[in-house]
Amino acid sequence: MSALGHRARRPDPTPGEREQQVLDRIDKARRRRAKVTDERITLSHGAGGKATQSLVEAIFLDAFRNPRLEPLEDAATLCVGSTRLALTTDSFVVSPLFFPGGDIGDLAVNGTVNDLAVSGATPLYLTAGFILEEGFPVADLERVVASMRAAAETAGVEIVTGDTKVVQRGKADGCYINTAGIGVIDADAPALGVATARPGDAVLVSGPIGEHGVTIMLARGELDIDAELESDTAAVHGMVADLRAAAPGVRAMRDATRGGVATILNEVAKAADVAVVVDEKAVPVKTEVRGASELLGIDPLYVACEGRIVVIVDPAEVAAALAALHRHPLGEQAAVIGRITEDPPGLVLLNTTFGGTRIVDLLVGDPLPRIC
Amino acid sequence: MSALGHRARRPDPTPGEREQQVLDRIDKARRRRAKVTDERITLSHGAGGKATQSLVEAIFLDAFRNPRLEPLEDAATLCVGSTRLALTTDSFVVSPLFFPGGDIGDLAVNGTVNDLAVSGATPLYLTAGFILEEGFPVADLERVVASMRAAAETAGVEIVTGDTKVVQRGKADGCYINTAGIGVIDADAPALGVATARPGDAVLVSGPIGEHGVTIMLARGELDIDAELESDTAAVHGMVADLRAAAPGVRAMRDATRGGVATILNEVAKAADVAVVVDEKAVPVKTEVRGASELLGIDPLYVACEGRIVVIVDPAEVAAALAALHRHPLGEQAAVIGRITEDPPGLVLLNTTFGGTRIVDLLVGDPLPRIC
Repeated sequence: MSALGHRARRPDPTPGEREQQVLDRIDKARRRRAKVTDERITLSHGAGGKATQSLVEAIFLDAFRNPRLEPLEDAATLCVGSTRLALTTDSFVVSPLFFPGGDIGDLAVNGTVNDLAVSGATPLYLTAGFILEEGFPVADLERVVASMRAAAETAGVEIVTGDTKVVQRGKADGCYINTAGIGVIDADAPALGVATARPGDAVLVSGPIGEHGVTIMLARGELDIDAELESDTAAVHGMVADLRAAAPGVRAMRDATRGGVATILNEVAKAADVAVVVDEKAVPVKTEVRGASELLGIDPLYVACEGRIVVIVDPAEVAAALAALHRHPLGEQAAVIGRITEDPPGLVLLNTTFGGTRIVDLLVGDPLPRIC
Repeated sequence: MSALGHRARRPDPTPGEREQQVLDRIDKARRRRAKVTDERITLSHGAGGKATQSLVEAIFLDAFRNPRLEPLEDAATLCVGSTRLALTTDSFVVSPLFFPGGDIGDLAVNGTVNDLAVSGATPLYLTAGFILEEGFPVADLERVVASMRAAAETAGVEIVTGDTKVVQRGKADGCYINTAGIGVIDADAPALGVATARPGDAVLVSGPIGEHGVTIMLARGELDIDAELESDTAAVHGMVADLRAAAPGVRAMRDATRGGVATILNEVAKAADVAVVVDEKAVPVKTEVRGASELLGIDPLYVACEGRIVVIVDPAEVAAALAALHRHPLGEQAAVIGRITEDPPGLVLLNTTFGGTRIVDLLVGDPLPRIC
């Protein structure tokens, strides 16, 4: 039986209260125990956004739970004997395999090198696991392997062990590559992690965002535009080393791949229970990327980079950090794009170029499948 | 102009000379620089036999060449700081995903644990990279992940980092998994490696061979027979530890997966430049495996195991090694199956049950695709 008729009518909420209610609902939804409600895997489970997060938390984290996995950083930090190590893995299923500025081979090396570098490790050794489709041209494999070799040389890492599987025609898409990597962490270096972000910290990006993602979409011919764009795929370990030497107050770094900068910032907000406030005007975006993103109906903040990092740094060291980034060829266009605040905890807010403020949530769906 | 008419006719070779000529030709073919003559990848490139070897040597080894990769052992041995580590990787594309005795999940954990264990390392940490096909049932993923968790617990390892990619329907076969793993190597333990095998050494297997491969073929319904068989998938690290404690004269161990025991023995013969002479009668093979292999027209020596190891041991320690294996549940049916001799270097010879001797060469083609 409804008791509605007996309730005193509440006064209408003020605009401020209404905003708070929205924030509370978002917050509540976020803190809910992750659950995968889909019966089948969808592309969005691989997009790096909300569905990926649910899958990881509800299925993988729940089953494999251990203190090294739980931070869900780009690499796990381990102690083996007296040595501190970082260990990471990534599979690459990018389509097409070859694109302006790179191919699946250098992507596979740089991706793993970068996951190690942003975890504060010096990348050392990589593994390479190939899943090849029957009928894949050997010449293409040779081209991919040559890219891997060149990328490994540039990054100063060695590929020390590997594996090759072949599946029947139609059971893969030419070539998938998994790389895992280990790096060594300086025992005296301060620990890094998005959970250590504090109110007052500055948020930097090392360069213009979204070039990799838009390049892939253009290479697929899915956009009827011509743009002079190349993937930004690069190994960031050198830039990271310079940055950390100049600014020991760096709290966390992430490379902004699948899901883009927006996803990283959401991870920061959630892990540190802080707000991230981004100034849209300050975010470096090339005109071609902005244009293509508009056509795609996607915010460049969600578009993958493969050689850009997001940096959270102590406010006292912003100038030093920015100067160090600017001195490195990969960081010439680095910029401060926002700051960490206390409220509203767990959220990313964007001060738009039009003067408004909106919430930048995790991506729903997958507008850019198989970007890496 | 032919000078044939002027040549003195050579006397017919004796049977012994003829045999030597055959051996010389095989030997010459083997020592030839590896070359991939195919223009496209075939299933045989993933079979673990001749084509895989050519691919690895001509393409991967040639591009990535470094002292840690070159031994082509199951895991690379590395020094990081003061710590000796083993690093390995394997992708799993087994079809079907679920089969009697296991599934792709425990296979992926056990396979990497075993590569570390036979390299003389204590397995510690694993990575897990998933490539999922759009439409893959989430319940199946949960089942696979539960198997991985159970296998990791049994093996005493932690899965500390991972990655998930999703590809469109038709671009994979449900679920592919890559695992990479690191283990620590006791600095005082003698180095292991198939290249250290010496004439006089004994060759052991830890149990009946070929059960995994035949189980998979039966699970695919490709053989019209009923047999009570289960995959032998298991983590061998405990058995390996017991074995090494009892017999420090163990020179090398390998887990006999793709390509089976025959492939391992060829690797021993080639790496150590020795002959391996196997006594067919001594090789433990279950009746069901022998029967199915006959139907398939394949020697059980080439059929994959996922929980059996081949051991090369100093002759003085054969009894101790065998006793240690017999005491372990996974090694109850361990047997000495052959010995290392000086001649003919690089070859594996089988003394057959019928009293003859034949060469057991590397596998050509792939009679058992996607076995792991």
